[in-house]
Amino acid sequence: MAELPNGKRSKWTVRASDMANRTHNPIRAIVDGLKLEPNPDKDFIALSLGDPTLFGNLSICEEMRETVCDVVNGMKSNGYGPALGLEFARAAVAKQFSIPESPLTSKDVVLGCGCSGAIEMALLVLANPGDNVLVPWPGFSIYRTLAGSYQFEARGYKLLPEKSWEADLEHMESLIDEKTACIVVNSPSNPCGGVFTKEHLQDICAIAERYHLPILSDEVYAGMVFPGHTFHSVASIAKNVPVLTCGGLAKRYLVPGWRLGWILIHDPMDAFKEEVRQGLMNLATRILGPCTLVQAAIPKIFTDTPSEFYTKSMDVFQANAELIYDALSHIPGLFPVMPCGAMYFMFGIDMDKFVGFNDDMEFVTKLVEEESVFCLPGKCFEYPNFVRIVTSLPKEKTVAAVERIKDFCARHYCGSADMAEGNGIK
Amino acid sequence: MAELPNGKRSKWTVRASDMANRTHNPIRAIVDGLKLEPNPDKDFIALSLGDPTLFGNLSICEEMRETVCDVVNGMKSNGYGPALGLEFARAAVAKQFSIPESPLTSKDVVLGCGCSGAIEMALLVLANPGDNVLVPWPGFSIYRTLAGSYQFEARGYKLLPEKSWEADLEHMESLIDEKTACIVVNSPSNPCGGVFTKEHLQDICAIAERYHLPILSDEVYAGMVFPGHTFHSVASIAKNVPVLTCGGLAKRYLVPGWRLGWILIHDPMDAFKEEVRQGLMNLATRILGPCTLVQAAIPKIFTDTPSEFYTKSMDVFQANAELIYDALSHIPGLFPVMPCGAMYFMFGIDMDKFVGFNDDMEFVTKLVEEESVFCLPGKCFEYPNFVRIVTSLPKEKTVAAVERIKDFCARHYCGSADMAEGNGIK
Repeated sequence: MAELPNGKRSKWTVRASDMANRTHNPIRAIVDGLKLEPNPDKDFIALSLGDPTLFGNLSICEEMRETVCDVVNGMKSNGYGPALGLEFARAAVAKQFSIPESPLTSKDVVLGCGCSGAIEMALLVLANPGDNVLVPWPGFSIYRTLAGSYQFEARGYKLLPEKSWEADLEHMESLIDEKTACIVVNSPSNPCGGVFTKEHLQDICAIAERYHLPILSDEVYAGMVFPGHTFHSVASIAKNVPVLTCGGLAKRYLVPGWRLGWILIHDPMDAFKEEVRQGLMNLATRILGPCTLVQAAIPKIFTDTPSEFYTKSMDVFQANAELIYDALSHIPGLFPVMPCGAMYFMFGIDMDKFVGFNDDMEFVTKLVEEESVFCLPGKCFEYPNFVRIVTSLPKEKTVAAVERIKDFCARHYCGSADMAEGNGIK
Repeated sequence: MAELPNGKRSKWTVRASDMANRTHNPIRAIVDGLKLEPNPDKDFIALSLGDPTLFGNLSICEEMRETVCDVVNGMKSNGYGPALGLEFARAAVAKQFSIPESPLTSKDVVLGCGCSGAIEMALLVLANPGDNVLVPWPGFSIYRTLAGSYQFEARGYKLLPEKSWEADLEHMESLIDEKTACIVVNSPSNPCGGVFTKEHLQDICAIAERYHLPILSDEVYAGMVFPGHTFHSVASIAKNVPVLTCGGLAKRYLVPGWRLGWILIHDPMDAFKEEVRQGLMNLATRILGPCTLVQAAIPKIFTDTPSEFYTKSMDVFQANAELIYDALSHIPGLFPVMPCGAMYFMFGIDMDKFVGFNDDMEFVTKLVEEESVFCLPGKCFEYPNFVRIVTSLPKEKTVAAVERIKDFCARHYCGSADMAEGNGIK
C-alpha cells in the first residue's frame, strides 16, 4: 500500500458522525428495547401508536381522495415547488388559518415535510446550540429528538394531571434563563389530550411577553377538542408575543404518511423582522418543500372537506375516551385522566399497589405477555408510572382492551379495595 | 413590567439562529441578487432551471400516473411509514439497483425526501463539523448548502472541461487530509453532463481505497447517458470501498416535486458496520420518511415503466445538446463542452473577447436584458466565466434560444474572427 501522506485512516472503519449518534427518537429506542412477547392465545391490540389510520375505522374523506387523484391526473404538479412551498398552497393555508387577531397572507406561511418537519425548521430558526427551549413535560418526543440532534436543551415544564394537564406556570417561569430561546406550547396535546383554556393561554403569553420569548405553538391537533371544550390557537391570544404555529394535515385529515405540515408566522410587533423569515427560507432550501402532489391538493382539501368528516373522527376519539375513563376509574390502582381533545389518553399507576411489576416499563411488558395489549410506557415521555393509550381504535377493540387491562390489574392488585370507585381525574 | 430575574431579553428582537443564517442555496442567493429585466419585445426563455417538467414537452408516463392514483384510491397508504421507509418500497428499490457486484436487500436501502434529502442524511452520517468532504467543482450546489449549514467544508476537486469533465485526480488527492470524511462523486453530473468512464471511476476508487475514504455517489442521473457512453454505478466498481449511493425519482422519472429519494448502502468490507446503518436510522427519525403515496407506488413504477419512456426524454436531451453544441461551437468567443448525459450543458466564455460584460454574471444579465434568454451563471457553482443551460426544453425553444445567444454574442464580440470554427470540446 502506498504511503498515507495526508490521509487519516490506515484501516477501514467508517464511524458515524456525532450528530447521527446523538439523534434519537426516545419512543423507538425504548419500545425497541422492550422484550414484547404477546400471549399467543389472545389477539394483539396495539394501543400505542398515534396513527389514526391504522385500524381502518377512520379514513380520509371521499373529496380528499378525489382531489389528490385530480392533481395526479392533471400532471401539472410534478415539478419542483419553491423551497417555501407552492404559492397557491401557502395562500390556501393562510386563508384557512387567518383570524382577525392574526391575519395571514401566503408570506406568513412556510410548508414543511409533515408537522414534524415544520417543528424542526421552527425550532432550528430560533435556537442555537447551547440554548434551551421550554417544552411540555410530558410532551411529544420530537422536541427531545431535535434537541439532542442539534444540541440545544429541551427543558420540560410540568403539566399537571390534577388540573387536566394545565402547565405549571410557576415551574415554567422558573426554567427561563438567559439561554432560553422559546416556549413550546402544545394544545390539544400529545400524549395527554389536554386542551388549554383561553385564560391559561393568556397566562402563558404573559410569561412569554414578560421575558420577551417567542412561542412555538405545536397545533397539529388544532380544532380536535371534545364538546364543552374550545380550541384556541395561541396566535388568537398572543397580542404581544410573536408565535410560530406549526400544524399539518396528519391528524385532523387522517393522513400522517402524506408528510404535509406548515409554519404560520404571527408577529404582531415585528419582533421576527426579516431575519427570522429569511432564516426559515434558508432552512427550507435544505428540503425544497413537501411532496407537490399533496401541496397542490391543499386548497381543495380545505374548501371541500365536509364538516361531518371532522366530527366523525372526534366522535370516535371522545366515545373511546369516555369508555376508557369509565372503565379505568373503577380499576383499583389506576388513575385515568380524562382528555379534553386530541386522540390520546394517559393514566397513572400506583405502583405500590401492584405486585409483578415495578414501573411503567414492566407494566406494559407484562400486560403484553398476559393480555396481548400494548400501551406506550410513560418513560417514552420521561414521565414514569403513567402510560399513554390511543383513542382511535374501533369501539369493540377498545372495549376488549380495557376489559383485559381490568383483568390484568385485578390479578396483580394487592392494595385495599376502598379505592375502587372514582379515582379518575376529570 | 416585572423584573427580569433570569430573562435574557429586555426588548422584542428575535434573532435567527446561526445555523439558519449560514444555510444558503448559492443558486437562489445569486439568482435573486441579479437584476433581471427581460426585453419586453421577446418572450422569456429560461434555460436556467433543472426541472425537466417545466415546459410541458416531457411528462410522466401513463403507467406511473395510474399507479399513484391506484395508491390514492386504495386508501392503504395514508398512515405513517417506518422512518427508513415502507419495507416493500425499500425492497423494490433494492431489487431495482441490485447488481452482482453489489447485491442489495431492503436492509441496504433508506428512503429520503428527494435525492437532496438522501444526500443530506448520507453527508450527515459521515461528516462531523470541522471535517471536509471532497466535492466536484463545478458541482451541484446542495453539497455547499449542507456544508455551510452543518459546518463541514465542501472542498472542490477540479473537473476538467478539456477532458469531458473528468476529475483532476491529482488535485483530488492533494485535497485529502486527516479531516476528510468522504469523496462525493456525481456521474452523470450536474452542472456539466459529464459521465465518468469505468476506468476513471476505478482510478477514483483507488484513491478512496488508498486513503480509506468512503464514497458518497450522487447518482440521481443514473442511466441518463447518451448513446456511445455507458453509465457505471460507483458500487459496481468499488470492490474495496464502501459507498453510499444517493438516487431518486426526480430526473429519470420526471417528478422532482414528488420528493422521493434513497440511499443504497454498499459495504463490501463491512467498513460501515452497524454504526453507520444505525446512524442513518437515527437521522431518518427526524423526517419519518417521504410521502407514503409515492413510497407505495415505487414497486410498480419500477416494474411498469416502459423502456420507451426513458429513451424519449434522453432523445430530447441529446438532440438539444447536439443542437446547442453545433450552434455554440461556431460562435466566436464561446467554448461549449459537449455533455455525455444528464440534462445540462456548460459553455465557457472568453471574456477578453467581449465588450459590454466582464464576467458570467454580467453576461447572463445582459443576455436577459437584450434577448430575454436566461442562463445560470457559473458563479452559482463557483465556476466563473462559464454558464449552465438545460437541454430539456422543446426543440423550437432551444433553437430560438441559441439563435438569440448567437445574435447577442455577435453584437458584443470584439476579437478576431479566426476562432469562429470548431472551438468546442467534444
